[in-house]
Amino acid sequence: MSIKYGIAKAGIKPSGDYDILVVKLPESIYSLYLTQNSLPAAPVIYDKMVSQLNETIKAFVVNSGNANAATGEKGFQNAQEMAQIVAQELDIEKDEVLVFSTGVIGVQLPMDKVEKGLKTAIKNLKELQLEPASKAIMTTDSFPKYYQTKGIINEEEFFIKGIAKGAGMIHPNMATMLAFIFTDVKIEKELLDKASKLVVERTFNSIDVDGCESTNDSVLVVATGESNVQIDESNKLYFAKKLYEVSLNLAKMIVKDGEGATKLIQINVHQAQDKEEAKWIAETIALSNLFKTAMFGNDPNWGRILSAVGQTHLDIDFSKVKLFLGEFLLYSGEPIEFNREEAVKYMKENREITIDLYLQRGEEDWTYYTCDLTYKYIQINAEYTT
Amino acid sequence: MSIKYGIAKAGIKPSGDYDILVVKLPESIYSLYLTQNSLPAAPVIYDKMVSQLNETIKAFVVNSGNANAATGEKGFQNAQEMAQIVAQELDIEKDEVLVFSTGVIGVQLPMDKVEKGLKTAIKNLKELQLEPASKAIMTTDSFPKYYQTKGIINEEEFFIKGIAKGAGMIHPNMATMLAFIFTDVKIEKELLDKASKLVVERTFNSIDVDGCESTNDSVLVVATGESNVQIDESNKLYFAKKLYEVSLNLAKMIVKDGEGATKLIQINVHQAQDKEEAKWIAETIALSNLFKTAMFGNDPNWGRILSAVGQTHLDIDFSKVKLFLGEFLLYSGEPIEFNREEAVKYMKENREITIDLYLQRGEEDWTYYTCDLTYKYIQINAEYTT
Repeated sequence: MSIKYGIAKAGIKPSGDYDILVVKLPESIYSLYLTQNSLPAAPVIYDKMVSQLNETIKAFVVNSGNANAATGEKGFQNAQEMAQIVAQELDIEKDEVLVFSTGVIGVQLPMDKVEKGLKTAIKNLKELQLEPASKAIMTTDSFPKYYQTKGIINEEEFFIKGIAKGAGMIHPNMATMLAFIFTDVKIEKELLDKASKLVVERTFNSIDVDGCESTNDSVLVVATGESNVQIDESNKLYFAKKLYEVSLNLAKMIVKDGEGATKLIQINVHQAQDKEEAKWIAETIALSNLFKTAMFGNDPNWGRILSAVGQTHLDIDFSKVKLFLGEFLLYSGEPIEFNREEAVKYMKENREITIDLYLQRGEEDWTYYTCDLTYKYIQINAEYTT
Repeated sequence: MSIKYGIAKAGIKPSGDYDILVVKLPESIYSLYLTQNSLPAAPVIYDKMVSQLNETIKAFVVNSGNANAATGEKGFQNAQEMAQIVAQELDIEKDEVLVFSTGVIGVQLPMDKVEKGLKTAIKNLKELQLEPASKAIMTTDSFPKYYQTKGIINEEEFFIKGIAKGAGMIHPNMATMLAFIFTDVKIEKELLDKASKLVVERTFNSIDVDGCESTNDSVLVVATGESNVQIDESNKLYFAKKLYEVSLNLAKMIVKDGEGATKLIQINVHQAQDKEEAKWIAETIALSNLFKTAMFGNDPNWGRILSAVGQTHLDIDFSKVKLFLGEFLLYSGEPIEFNREEAVKYMKENREITIDLYLQRGEEDWTYYTCDLTYKYIQINAEYTT
């Protein structure tokens, strides 16, 4: 069997749009990454439990419109019940089903509606199609997010494809980043875990919209093993690169769709002492409100970038630092002359902006993706009151 | 002699306003707190050096309009030269003078103008007056910040008074928090350091406007010893409370004047396991853009507060947590009913908002002060391009 999906309009979203997605899988190994937030949503707690019990899954379910977060014992029971209903309808075990939710927090799920929706979705299961599946998990997303690629190993094809959602945190409480990635390679769990951990760290864990971490963030990577491609030590890098391609494209779509964003900004930190330091510096720049507003204002304001770097309190020698905005060298150990007019033009004319920071203190690098901070972000998050 | 001040319009600020302040002191002990940013401005580097050489000072100088930051070796020489000019004019030693700067970064000081300004200021030295002195150190501040109090110990009076500046970070590069506090008590350096460290941690180090740390932040506490009050173990708490009063009032003025701010928000975290944890939680809420926009939007959105708490990744038991907005209990271990209309009214009608978070996991507390995130913050920081 292949990967099937079913969607339904259960009425959880006030808009009446699709809000239930059920995915039926062949028995598949999987890697799962859940939010580190200490207020995890009920489905996150449930999935963590399942993943400790069971190395394979046969289905997962997502509802949008309600995050089932901060909902206490009742919320946990509801997450369990969602798994139970799906298991029963598909004639599989409850602990072969993962559950994901996104939407409003602090409100109990309308379980009667959820149950009807799950049954409808399962009645209409068909071959996985990325676009409609990705639409069913949207909340404030302004466009559906999906991406696919193929690979060939020893003349045998395999696919990696995925869907994602997320656009920053939203009213009334928060949005969430969810990503589901499917591949048909044969791979051992240990190798899948290893590859996907590296990839998730460089993609979904290296993006920012507003610095706020959700209670529901989850990334699931599933390998059905239905192709004739066996991933092993000899080809794991090739596989990891394909997985990176899919993950990065999905992650960048989330940033591009950041609430109110007008620009996608790629921050490359080079020549750090270690990866942790490189990531920390890139992230500190990415999270700076002053940097983000300067990007919105098309202001090649290198002082805000360097002062954000300094906020790490690392003993960086700024007399060795070089900073580029696109192709423009803005700072080279000291303030230098640069063509400000052209630099501003570069910012105004490009939807994607690149920052390159050379530290000259090591050989490690990291890239972080962020967006600008705009009037519209304030509007989205302040004007719509509960 | 008492504390004298002189101000001048040196022409460092494009506006032509006062931009030089010289303060002449009796030989005074002092405590100094400088930014931890790893790109410290030239005067910060200079002052650090002086404070290692010398336990007393006889003067300090502040220029506004130029931060002398990211200015390399030349900038350091200029900071030294400022001290040298003041020392020469006042007939004291160079290493008895501290230097502070605030304003644009990455631009060398116009030393000819600075020199003239310093000489003018010193020619016109007179008895310290807080209002004009605080005006001379303003950058984007919308009002001058000063505060004074008196104390009586054994029927002898002493004063504590101070000036401050800061309003968030500003164009073209950054603003800075500067605070100068004066007292005439007799006190040993060790005791002054101890008292002021505690006070600074609970005041100037517990405020936020936009999460961005400046390269120039400095707090100076000076004790002239000219009163008849000796501070010792028996009365140090009384002195510390007075110092706290002055520091807290100055710190709150800075938050109130936060760029674009319409509200001052006091976040009280109670019943934490230790002080560090209490401060970390309060700070994480204070820095959340989602929280800050909800405050601007008069939205009693407890989910954004709790998810910010969760972002600390501490193992908090949320079934024990109670959250108040003003007098309104919004969350008590689970979502509860509250009078939303009245809570919104409280937010709309008050310029100062209080959040109280009870954790039930210990006995320590911390208070952090922040402001909301508004359209005007975006305007100030994005629209005015270099």
